[in-house]
Amino acid sequence: GRKYRIVVLPGDGIGPEISKVALDVLRCLGPEEGIEFEFQEKLLGGAAIDAVGDPLPDDTLEACKDSDAVLLAAIGGYKWDNNEPCLRPERGLLGLRAGMGVFANLRPAIVLPQLVDSSTLKREVAEGVDIMVVRELTGGIYFGQPKGFGKNSDGEPIAFNTEVYSVSEIDRIARVAFEIARKRRGELCSIDKSNVLEASQLWRQVVTDVGKDYPDVKLTHMLVDNAAMQLIRDPKQFDTIVTNNIFGDILSDEASMLTGSIGMLPSASVKTSGPGLFEPIHGSAPDIAGQDKANPLAMILSAAMLLKYGLGEKQAAERIEKAVTITLDNGFRTGDIMAPGKKLVGCTAMGEQVIKAL
Amino acid sequence: GRKYRIVVLPGDGIGPEISKVALDVLRCLGPEEGIEFEFQEKLLGGAAIDAVGDPLPDDTLEACKDSDAVLLAAIGGYKWDNNEPCLRPERGLLGLRAGMGVFANLRPAIVLPQLVDSSTLKREVAEGVDIMVVRELTGGIYFGQPKGFGKNSDGEPIAFNTEVYSVSEIDRIARVAFEIARKRRGELCSIDKSNVLEASQLWRQVVTDVGKDYPDVKLTHMLVDNAAMQLIRDPKQFDTIVTNNIFGDILSDEASMLTGSIGMLPSASVKTSGPGLFEPIHGSAPDIAGQDKANPLAMILSAAMLLKYGLGEKQAAERIEKAVTITLDNGFRTGDIMAPGKKLVGCTAMGEQVIKAL
Ligand SMILES: CC(C)[C@H](C(=O)O)[C@@H](O)C(=O)O
Ligand SMILES: CC(C)[C@H](C(=O)O)[C@@H](O)C(=O)O
Repeated sequence: GRKYRIVVLPGDGIGPEISKVALDVLRCLGPEEGIEFEFQEKLLGGAAIDAVGDPLPDDTLEACKDSDAVLLAAIGGYKWDNNEPCLRPERGLLGLRAGMGVFANLRPAIVLPQLVDSSTLKREVAEGVDIMVVRELTGGIYFGQPKGFGKNSDGEPIAFNTEVYSVSEIDRIARVAFEIARKRRGELCSIDKSNVLEASQLWRQVVTDVGKDYPDVKLTHMLVDNAAMQLIRDPKQFDTIVTNNIFGDILSDEASMLTGSIGMLPSASVKTSGPGLFEPIHGSAPDIAGQDKANPLAMILSAAMLLKYGLGEKQAAERIEKAVTITLDNGFRTGDIMAPGKKLVGCTAMGEQVIKAL
Repeated sequence: GRKYRIVVLPGDGIGPEISKVALDVLRCLGPEEGIEFEFQEKLLGGAAIDAVGDPLPDDTLEACKDSDAVLLAAIGGYKWDNNEPCLRPERGLLGLRAGMGVFANLRPAIVLPQLVDSSTLKREVAEGVDIMVVRELTGGIYFGQPKGFGKNSDGEPIAFNTEVYSVSEIDRIARVAFEIARKRRGELCSIDKSNVLEASQLWRQVVTDVGKDYPDVKLTHMLVDNAAMQLIRDPKQFDTIVTNNIFGDILSDEASMLTGSIGMLPSASVKTSGPGLFEPIHGSAPDIAGQDKANPLAMILSAAMLLKYGLGEKQAAERIEKAVTITLDNGFRTGDIMAPGKKLVGCTAMGEQVIKAL
């Protein structure tokens, strides 16, 4: 059998509940697929701040770098909102992404036929939406130097950040995106603001150059403001999207919400080789934490992405995806996706149904 | 009678057609309201590149600065898309905004009851949406120094831009936004990315400070990625939004598209005192230019904003707004907002109907 070491980061809020359910699913699936998992739990975010005063303890980062893949639930909460910046949960996440070097964030936004009515979009607009947003994750304005506080030439206080990309940073994310587009419908839309930003002009040029190695993929370019509109006007026009860190943050969340069910959406953050980081796109939902109300499906689907993109265990991944589909077809719904005539279940019960469907 | 000097910038594509219609409306309204308009046409964008090799000729900028208000139609087109950056139509617009110093861009996104079905959102989500986005327009990453191309410490080519805000830049846009919120429903949502960007941390702090002068306005803060979601999930939660230049570019376009009828939406770019710049939010639509198909209503409503925000002629402005409402109630529609059972008209005929309704 194959053996994998998985670091699990339950984090904050609903994180521990949904982690437990996802691990149960993996534990059930493993033996049947001839896979052995070794799970190691580590602290991240608010939980780590409370325990050891650091949102990303060294031994968490070391364990993650040393693993075969990392499964993260969610971090953050009101409790830490007024901490100084370096003691906020998000800093742990940003440090983890940078420390692991996972430069490519894959964010599917899929409208499942069972949940099309959860969308605030009209049925005919939402039906069939299936977008993959490939977001650059370790560069751009999130990490660019110089940044900080200072004074301008008039002696007035200012604050600044730097949007910066190198050719190799753009080249590698573009290649990830073209490879993904090739396995999907063969269409890649690169999104930038090249009519205003020099950083976007380089982005567009390098993506265009990389495109010459992928003649089978249809490459188009779109300005970010137009993309924000087109996602609402006609989301089905998009197959694969590639964009920078900050535009990807905004547009991937916009695309997610088109589905109306962000409690269903997983994400993967990967690099060319080495362990990847897999997490649901939703937050830690502190208001419902500990009440067994959370939707564990995004976390379960993140475990499926971990199997597929992190470990190359495609068959096991597809079994999980299928089990989730069956569970929805059987009418089970958590509160966030509840609809008339369906069966309302909690986090644990939803997990049990998925295991049954496996 | 009051006398105003208006600079008109017809620009490119459908610009000249919709300008003509808007001027006809103003010419008809003027005498009835005791207002005398002196219109002066100037070149901007592609038209200016073709005529004099400069997207913003000096005499255009001078005339605008020297006017009582500027009415701009639209710029740009495929024809100039491959020009070098400094010879692109957009550069003319950016230069005009900076040159006029119009730091506050007001972008209403209103779902008119007559057009609620144009939205891709479900009726119950779209109905009643009435958002004003106040976007900072002359600072941030659009203009920040340093910017350009260079090499990093590994000798690799890079491109960079600087997101930078000073206290006074944030203070003045915040005051504009609070004043507007006060005249609307009294709620202001400031949008930033303060969990990642230092520039956003200063933004949040200064907006909060300014808020102390407006105890009657309810101030909230939201992260930009969440805002991109919330606009789709429940747009009615927003009254007035204030945000920086790049987030405002993206979110105001997103908010516009929620209405489904961007051919209806005007905008105003103003400063504390001095002439403002008024323009529809839609583009120059080169594919339908010269065919008398364009929707002139956004341009006509931009003229109304010019009267209200630019000249303080509130009554005249409201007469135009009312005439547009009547025209829609009478069932007239251009192609972009056409619906079953309505009367399809072209650009000129739509203008005539508005004048009739005046
Ligand atoms: C928590 C925050 C720093 C993070 C980001 O902006 O990248 C989040 O919004 C995300 O998209 O994963
Ligand atoms: C044309 C372009 C430079 C401009 C901007 O980005 O500001 C436009 O998108 C707008 O919003 O008015």
